[in-house]
Amino acid sequence: MRANLYAFMARTEISTLGEFGLIKHLTQGLHTVQPSTKKAVGDDCAVMDFGSKKVLMTTDMLLEGIHFNLEYVPLKYLGYKAAVVNFSDIYAMNGTPTQITVSLGISKRFSVEDIDALYAGIRLACERYGVDLVGGDTCASMTGLTISITCLGTAAAKDIVYRNGAKLNDLICVSGNLGTAYMGLQLLEREKLVAQADDKAQLQFEGKEYLLERQLKPEARRDILEALRKAGVRPTAMMDISDGLSSELLHICTQSQVGCCIYEDKLPIDYQAAALAEEMNLNIVTCVLNGGEDYELLFTCSLDDYEKLIPIDDLYIIGHITKPEHGCNLIGRNGEEITLKAQGWNAFS
Amino acid sequence: MRANLYAFMARTEISTLGEFGLIKHLTQGLHTVQPSTKKAVGDDCAVMDFGSKKVLMTTDMLLEGIHFNLEYVPLKYLGYKAAVVNFSDIYAMNGTPTQITVSLGISKRFSVEDIDALYAGIRLACERYGVDLVGGDTCASMTGLTISITCLGTAAAKDIVYRNGAKLNDLICVSGNLGTAYMGLQLLEREKLVAQADDKAQLQFEGKEYLLERQLKPEARRDILEALRKAGVRPTAMMDISDGLSSELLHICTQSQVGCCIYEDKLPIDYQAAALAEEMNLNIVTCVLNGGEDYELLFTCSLDDYEKLIPIDDLYIIGHITKPEHGCNLIGRNGEEITLKAQGWNAFS
Repeated sequence: MRANLYAFMARTEISTLGEFGLIKHLTQGLHTVQPSTKKAVGDDCAVMDFGSKKVLMTTDMLLEGIHFNLEYVPLKYLGYKAAVVNFSDIYAMNGTPTQITVSLGISKRFSVEDIDALYAGIRLACERYGVDLVGGDTCASMTGLTISITCLGTAAAKDIVYRNGAKLNDLICVSGNLGTAYMGLQLLEREKLVAQADDKAQLQFEGKEYLLERQLKPEARRDILEALRKAGVRPTAMMDISDGLSSELLHICTQSQVGCCIYEDKLPIDYQAAALAEEMNLNIVTCVLNGGEDYELLFTCSLDDYEKLIPIDDLYIIGHITKPEHGCNLIGRNGEEITLKAQGWNAFS
Repeated sequence: MRANLYAFMARTEISTLGEFGLIKHLTQGLHTVQPSTKKAVGDDCAVMDFGSKKVLMTTDMLLEGIHFNLEYVPLKYLGYKAAVVNFSDIYAMNGTPTQITVSLGISKRFSVEDIDALYAGIRLACERYGVDLVGGDTCASMTGLTISITCLGTAAAKDIVYRNGAKLNDLICVSGNLGTAYMGLQLLEREKLVAQADDKAQLQFEGKEYLLERQLKPEARRDILEALRKAGVRPTAMMDISDGLSSELLHICTQSQVGCCIYEDKLPIDYQAAALAEEMNLNIVTCVLNGGEDYELLFTCSLDDYEKLIPIDDLYIIGHITKPEHGCNLIGRNGEEITLKAQGWNAFS
């Protein structure tokens, strides 16, 4: 039958392109025809103009066994996180999330109570962030749980911050701390193995609750955007950190056609994360650069805003934008220059 | 670990609720807070107001092994259909589709060429219907292919047609013919078994190409809406037929708080579909009432519009709206009254 034709065609493994390579490949030559489309692929959100305000749109798919492991992620937390990561994409454009649709593919393994727990998390996130759940699709799946959420948001045209606006000498800032969600995942994985080996074993979460929280229940940094607005600072480029600092910084530099220089001793590292990395023999700086899922904000802003940034809580200046020919570098504690690479998470490898 | 807590909780099988029951269960008590949300769950699309025009939003998830079988569905056709079914939801509200996002979960079985073929279909559909592909998410999956598409559309507030506007004595109309996509699926399933039993067998598609086309490459009926607009007819209630005529008609009647009466001898049936049903010993009327995926339009309109409807090509008046106490009935060829039931497709059974 017709589908068999594919057997005779060339076969390129998706892993040879990677996620970003595949997206680039699929979207090359794409053009838009709707006057309302202001920005299509290539940023945290698409941007549409339907009237007085711009409309932002973003979507995320989470698949069991790839993005989450229900052995240690309670479904309510999963629902909360699935919604919040979409809100984070809208905030990353300096917008306000307003509506989501939720599509679920559900295998027979899941009961109504399970889906209730998942939805309770989604609804809690919506409530906390003032977002409406306006629709979706619910269907059976052969195996596992699939969650696909699409989020709309709004912003005045002048407020939207893209990835391509970083300018020479701009400051590079991040919120919160980085690598923490990744260390939370390491902890969960370790304790899962302990529990598998001995179901009476005492699990070692004490004193590390913050790491679990960062992995299981991330928040979108709407507070940072409010603080920036109050301080009169408008970022020149911005995105949220979902795949790791290196990967995201390279996106901003590529799209803004600039280089960057960040400093190891300026990277915000949580104490618990550093202690666990030490305990597990991991390099915490590598975790900060490449660990994903922190959902903190990464942005650049004018050097003139320096004084306004200092009083803002939980905000860190980690470097500055350079000319493109200098590349993207981390300056180590001993002054050594290390080229940043997008080692972030490649789901296809 | 915490997820084990679920083991002690009550367990209700999702199949006991069914798809619509689950959606109702999950969305009960849902309220909205955003001023821009005009209509949340319960129709083909959500409706938002961001300025001069209303924004419609709909989403559909397709899962391999549930919604499609790649043994006989070429990926390009699948991509085309996945996009078109979303456009159909926007047209079903009398809107114009404008943007989509596409999220894919892809297992290692698929190559870049496979995903190219899928995307070629999506892009072709976008081109034909003037819709922009503005974003998405692409990730690995453990098994199979998952496609989640969200579509935005626009409409002037006065043009939007909901499911709840049917009035006593309104005419009930459908476009095209019904049960045809279902018969196309029966044909593909039959020939798959023939091919499995004998790989040299001659497959019997001749003279039945239209059935295949209706199953593999459905179109959204934008032409019917244009014809209605030209004729000066505004439907009072409308939806597209994705789960079967009975199921959709019951949605309209429930939401409009009315009953309905449709006539067996008015149902539009394609000749090839009827012939194949005869050949396969299926009751074609059952296929028309309960077979899904036709993506034709079902709408009601005022009796006063009768004369305007007659000249419109490919449009059929199949009955009328009654008082709610009369229920929802089909009048058979011999005058017998048969109560309509939503036997449509329950993915969870």
